[in-house]
Amino acid sequence: MPTTKQVFIAVIGAGGVGKCFLSQLSALATRKPTPKLSLCYISSSKKAVFNSDYNSIGIENALQELSSSSKSPLALSQIADYLAGAPSKAVLVDNTSSQDVADAYPLFLSRGISIVTPNKKAFSGSYKLWQDIFAAASESGAKVYHESSVGAGLPVISTLKDLVETGDEVTKIEGVFSGTMSFLFNSFAPVEGSGGQWSAEVKKAKELGYTEPDPRDDLNGLDVARKLTILARLAGLPVESPTSFPVQSLIPKELETVSSGDEFLEKLPGFDSQMEETKSAAEKQGKVVRFVGSIDMASKSVKVGLETFDKSHPIAALKGSDNIISFYTKRYGSNPLIIQGAGAGGDVTAMGVTSDLIKVLSQIA
Amino acid sequence: MPTTKQVFIAVIGAGGVGKCFLSQLSALATRKPTPKLSLCYISSSKKAVFNSDYNSIGIENALQELSSSSKSPLALSQIADYLAGAPSKAVLVDNTSSQDVADAYPLFLSRGISIVTPNKKAFSGSYKLWQDIFAAASESGAKVYHESSVGAGLPVISTLKDLVETGDEVTKIEGVFSGTMSFLFNSFAPVEGSGGQWSAEVKKAKELGYTEPDPRDDLNGLDVARKLTILARLAGLPVESPTSFPVQSLIPKELETVSSGDEFLEKLPGFDSQMEETKSAAEKQGKVVRFVGSIDMASKSVKVGLETFDKSHPIAALKGSDNIISFYTKRYGSNPLIIQGAGAGGDVTAMGVTSDLIKVLSQIA
Repeated sequence: MPTTKQVFIAVIGAGGVGKCFLSQLSALATRKPTPKLSLCYISSSKKAVFNSDYNSIGIENALQELSSSSKSPLALSQIADYLAGAPSKAVLVDNTSSQDVADAYPLFLSRGISIVTPNKKAFSGSYKLWQDIFAAASESGAKVYHESSVGAGLPVISTLKDLVETGDEVTKIEGVFSGTMSFLFNSFAPVEGSGGQWSAEVKKAKELGYTEPDPRDDLNGLDVARKLTILARLAGLPVESPTSFPVQSLIPKELETVSSGDEFLEKLPGFDSQMEETKSAAEKQGKVVRFVGSIDMASKSVKVGLETFDKSHPIAALKGSDNIISFYTKRYGSNPLIIQGAGAGGDVTAMGVTSDLIKVLSQIA
Repeated sequence: MPTTKQVFIAVIGAGGVGKCFLSQLSALATRKPTPKLSLCYISSSKKAVFNSDYNSIGIENALQELSSSSKSPLALSQIADYLAGAPSKAVLVDNTSSQDVADAYPLFLSRGISIVTPNKKAFSGSYKLWQDIFAAASESGAKVYHESSVGAGLPVISTLKDLVETGDEVTKIEGVFSGTMSFLFNSFAPVEGSGGQWSAEVKKAKELGYTEPDPRDDLNGLDVARKLTILARLAGLPVESPTSFPVQSLIPKELETVSSGDEFLEKLPGFDSQMEETKSAAEKQGKVVRFVGSIDMASKSVKVGLETFDKSHPIAALKGSDNIISFYTKRYGSNPLIIQGAGAGGDVTAMGVTSDLIKVLSQIA
C-alpha cells in the first residue's frame, strides 16, 4: 500500500517529448527519495497502462508496457476521476499538444490535480480557458506549471513570473520564439555573407527536420503567435486569442490552399522574389531581416512578423535554431534581461517539464 | 494573535539592497494574502526593531522605526531562539554581506528557520560551511535560497539547479560575472573604437559609483572568484575555497600595499602600459580582452582572469555593466544557454531575494 509523502503521476503523450520526459523521470525517481513518485497511468493516443489499485508502473519499462498493452486510453473525465481517487496527491503531465486535453485542465485542477505541461494550447487558446484554468487552480490549491510552452526548457515563463510577482514593470518583450524561423532567417539573411534562396532554405530546413511535416504550419506564424499570447497574458494583457493581433504569414496567398506540403515546396521557388526584395531592402540599410514577436505594454500591442535589425543587435547575431527573448523592464532599464539558447527539441523541452514537476512536488508533498 | 498560514520574517541588513527589498516586501504583503507575512524583526548594524510577542512591524514604516529605535541588534543565537519560538514558520532574510551571519546559517537552518539571501559569503567560504548549510537544511526541511549571490536577480542559480536536477550534464560555464569589470572592459576595449586609458576608466568607474570605495576590492578578482566557487559547487565540483584556484588580480604588485583607494588611483596611471600591451596584443588578432570566469567540468578546473574574444562573441559584445553567463551542457550542445543583463544594483538584487522568498513561502506555508 502507498505510504504518505507519495505523489501519483499520470503521463499523457508518449511522442518525442514524452519519451525524453520518461527518461528524465526515471533518473529523478532514482535520485529523489522524497516524495516517492508513483507512475500510475501512461497513455499514447491509442493505448494506456494503468490499474485500479494505483500500483506503480515501472518507469523504465513504461514505454514497452505501453506498446504491448491491450487497454485503450481512458476518457479525460475518467482520468480525472481516477487521479482524484488516488491515495495521495496527483500530478497530470500532459506531453501532448492536444486542445481536448487542454480544455480539460479546469476539470483536473478543480479536483485538486496539479498539471505540468509543454502544451501551448491551454494557455494560448481563448482567454476564457486561461481564466478558468487559473481560477480552478487558485480555488483548489492545485499547481499548474508550463515552462516549456515558450522557449522549451529556457527559463522564460519563470523569469517573467518572477519579474511580475516581485513588482517590476515589464515595458516590452521582444524576441525570436521559433527554432524553425530562427534557422531559416539565420541561413537566408546571415550577418556575414549573402545567404541562400528563400525556397531552398525552407526545403533544407524541412530535410533537416526543423519544420513541421507541412512547413506552412511554421510559416503561418501561428506557433509564434501562441507563445506571444502566453507571455502577454502573464505580463498582464488580457489578449483574447492568438488571432486577435497582427500576425504576418510567410505563406504566399496563392499557396495557402495547395493540397500538400510537398506541392507547397515545389511551387515556393516561384515566389522567391518577394522575400529577396525584403532581404535586399534591409541590406541597403546595413540591416538583416528576422521573424520576431513583440509585446509593447504601454500601447498594449502584440505583433508577429518580419522586422529589420542592425547586424550588431543580439537578435541579428543569433545562431543555428536558437531562440532569444529580451525582457525590457523598469528595473533593468535600457539593457534588457536576455535569455538565449535552444528553444526546441525533445530533451530540452522535457527538461522544462521535469523541472516544473520538481517545483510542483516541492509544494504539494 | 497570529492565525495559521502566517509566516514570520526577520530581516538583517538595511543598506542599499535591504531598503529595496523592504519596498518589494511591502508590495508583496499587500498583493499576496496567503500566507500572511509578519515582519517580526529588522536590524541594521547598530539598531533593531522587534518585540517579544511577535507583533507585526508595519513594513512601510519599518525603516523609520528602525532609525528611531533605541534597541540594539540581538546576537545571532538570540535571533535564532526568537525565530524558532515564533508561533509558526519563520524565514531569515540576510541582506548583509557579513561572514558572521553566514557562519550562523547552519544554526538557523537546523532550528527549522528558512533563509533567503544575496550574501555570497555563506556559499563561497569554506567547503565545510557549504556542506554544513545544506546538511542542516536537508535534515530540518528548512529551505535556503540565494539567487542573488550570483548575477543579482538574473536567473543564474535557479537555471543551473534546474539543469543539474533534471539530469543534464554541465560541461562548461563561462561569463562576465562582475558589473564593475564589465563596465571597465566595455569602455577600455570596446568592440568599435579604441577605448580609453585603463587608469582613466577605473577612475571614471569609481566616480560613477560602479566600484567599491577602494577599487582594488573589485580589481583583485575575489568577487568573481566567489561567484565561480558557488556555481562550481552547484555544478558538482567540491571547490575548497575562492582562493583554491587561479585568480588573476589586476592590481599591480607595487600598488597592493598603498594605504588608500585614493592613493591607488593616483599611482595607477604609472602602470597603464601593462594593460595597454594586453589590449594591443588582442587587437592584433582582431580580438578584445575581457575579465571572465570559467569552469571546465571535464578537467575540474576553475579560473578567473583576462581572456581574449572574437569581436562577434557574445562576451565581447556585452554593453554597459551587464553580466553574461553561458551554460554549455550536453543537452544544449554547441550553442550554450545564455543569460544576460544587469548583474548589480539594489533593485535587481532585491528582486532575486524577493522571488526567492516567494518560492520559499510556496513551500513552507
